[in-house]
Amino acid sequence: MRHARLTHIAQDLWGQVLRQGDVCVDATCGNGHDTAFLAKAVGRGGTVHAFDVQQQAIDATQQAVAGSVPGDEAPALHLHLRSHAEMRQVVADHSARVVVFNLGYLPGSDKETITQRSSTLAAVEAACQVLQPGGLCSILCYTGHPGGVEEYEAVKAAAGALPTSAWVTSEVRLLNRPSAPVLLLVWKRP
Amino acid sequence: MRHARLTHIAQDLWGQVLRQGDVCVDATCGNGHDTAFLAKAVGRGGTVHAFDVQQQAIDATQQAVAGSVPGDEAPALHLHLRSHAEMRQVVADHSARVVVFNLGYLPGSDKETITQRSSTLAAVEAACQVLQPGGLCSILCYTGHPGGVEEYEAVKAAAGALPTSAWVTSEVRLLNRPSAPVLLLVWKRP
Repeated sequence: MRHARLTHIAQDLWGQVLRQGDVCVDATCGNGHDTAFLAKAVGRGGTVHAFDVQQQAIDATQQAVAGSVPGDEAPALHLHLRSHAEMRQVVADHSARVVVFNLGYLPGSDKETITQRSSTLAAVEAACQVLQPGGLCSILCYTGHPGGVEEYEAVKAAAGALPTSAWVTSEVRLLNRPSAPVLLLVWKRP
Repeated sequence: MRHARLTHIAQDLWGQVLRQGDVCVDATCGNGHDTAFLAKAVGRGGTVHAFDVQQQAIDATQQAVAGSVPGDEAPALHLHLRSHAEMRQVVADHSARVVVFNLGYLPGSDKETITQRSSTLAAVEAACQVLQPGGLCSILCYTGHPGGVEEYEAVKAAAGALPTSAWVTSEVRLLNRPSAPVLLLVWKRP
């Protein structure tokens, strides 16, 4: 929480939740940094599913994991060149300990391929299904690009509508860096 | 962070930051639960300063600490029947590892004695002075009583105006419990 970057706050939280052998999902693998973090956290015996609609992201993620996790410590890595909204077709319900989203566009890409409000909402709904009790879904939302605010507002509203009997949902935002992204957290109660 | 109560999220964070022997401050000791938590966290060799303007709170806090920390494990406990805005008169600058605020009124009291926007702002400013590098000030804000929203907005604005070079400030709020309080976090960079 004392990090100045919400990406690091998010990683801290994943690290607190994940144990070796867990199943987890990077719903927007992009350049692969988050997937590599997850792969290290679950290690040998674990499983990481990574989704992206861009081949460039899938390739970068494969390289990022290979470059940061030694082969004999690596989990099973499943790279899916498809929409994260189709998550339930490859990840079993109630199996994932952590599901992470880093919305917006792929850093370094053309910025024309961005996550979209409707598919993001479907993907977050799918994430809630594949999450195991006690698990965490974290969603980092960027609001600086066209459609970003609407996407963030939609996901926030969906998280806010989850019943308190089964879910704890919260928002973390930096106050003295107003242009920073916003972190939404969705916990499934044990 | 996965707690459904922000009071527990806050305590989790204090626990991550505090080490035995630290100096810390409960700026609004109320019924003493937070002071007792802090006392356990810093233990023997540590120092806890607790402030409240109500004798009832000071008495309750003394009892809460005595009832939850064995005498031979207790830190030095200094109870101050005065405004937390005067914190710098008894806590040395750059000495406190954690300063906590739980704004609003004393649970179980007449609800007429509440923290006030102006003195709260002065107290948070004082807290930033007494905080040591790497330290945390957490402020739990209630918005359901008259003046609560204005007090929260004022503290949030002050936290948002702190320079990013020296401070990381953030806000945590529960999304599916809109009437829940809001947690403001002010970290002094190491």
